Amino acid sequence: MTALENLIQTLSRLPGIGPKSASRLAYHLIKTDPFYNRTLAESIATIQEKIFPCSVCGSFTETDPCPICSDAGRDRTQLCVVEQPQDVVTLQSSGAYNGLYHVLGGAISPLDGIGPEHLSFSALLKRIETGAFQELIIATNPTEEGDTTALYIRHILKDWSELSITRLASGLPIGGDLEYADRITLARSLRQRVRF
Amino acid sequence: MTALENLIQTLSRLPGIGPKSASRLAYHLIKTDPFYNRTLAESIATIQEKIFPCSVCGSFTETDPCPICSDAGRDRTQLCVVEQPQDVVTLQSSGAYNGLYHVLGGAISPLDGIGPEHLSFSALLKRIETGAFQELIIATNPTEEGDTTALYIRHILKDWSELSITRLASGLPIGGDLEYADRITLARSLRQRVRF
Repeated sequence: MTALENLIQTLSRLPGIGPKSASRLAYHLIKTDPFYNRTLAESIATIQEKIFPCSVCGSFTETDPCPICSDAGRDRTQLCVVEQPQDVVTLQSSGAYNGLYHVLGGAISPLDGIGPEHLSFSALLKRIETGAFQELIIATNPTEEGDTTALYIRHILKDWSELSITRLASGLPIGGDLEYADRITLARSLRQRVRF
Repeated sequence: MTALENLIQTLSRLPGIGPKSASRLAYHLIKTDPFYNRTLAESIATIQEKIFPCSVCGSFTETDPCPICSDAGRDRTQLCVVEQPQDVVTLQSSGAYNGLYHVLGGAISPLDGIGPEHLSFSALLKRIETGAFQELIIATNPTEEGDTTALYIRHILKDWSELSITRLASGLPIGGDLEYADRITLARSLRQRVRF
């Protein structure tokens, strides 16, 4: 295999990059500014050393605890539960939330072999026990797995009567992924969150 | 800027990769097999050292002349003129052509400041003078720039009455890029190429 074929094959293993996109990217990389290639290669080679999960919320960070967990200006009575670290960034970009986050690391999906034991529910319970949370906002994806996960959270917290449990309002397209929602829809679904 | 923001911003400078795709790719790279990241980074960092233009046809290669130019089994009476190196790969994948190629390095585009002097027309003329070509197949894109370039080639070769000049048949969607055509359409447009 030539270096070009090798690069195209490697690129086409990225999510959402098919063989034609991979080919187009590879030809772009052959002709682009060499400094750009060195920067990109360096970023890719070192990203896993620099980024790790926050020991408190599970979001990706370069410092522990992450900037959100250690921000004294945030509302420590609200906890928003999301599936993935990128969902924190997406919700932050809506500008409609100033509380804390908890990243589960995925959603319950029996078909994929992902049960509650694979997600950070015990850390979530511990945070609720030791924290001062008044409201738990479930922001799992509006998918079957996200719905299952939301129901599971409500189930394990059924004895916490003092904790208000809410979920993002519909308005999010059903079956879609949270990270592809536009900011306005997302901000509205935060404002119109309903008791769950 | 954090390492993650830096990676997202660097990825979003790639063609066809918007901010959301860049973000999705970056999160994938954080979680993927570290060996994959090293392989991808290495491929990107070294691609420009390994790949260079063939001194005969201008296509990208790791050996000079390229495997197509040095293949004794190819028909040396046919020369197919394309805009970009990736067009050679695309046409090869159609399986409908067994002649040689000439890569112009682009198309004439006065609005982008690309005139005939920026493309390899003098090398093309030299190859026609010294070669044994009987047919020149123009396979520039079916766009305004590709059409202009095709007309220019016909103009500079108007005195070569013994050379049959053809162009890929229509069937390619107008305004599209050659590299996104499907193989069947491409093979048909090669078979039905018309005198130009």
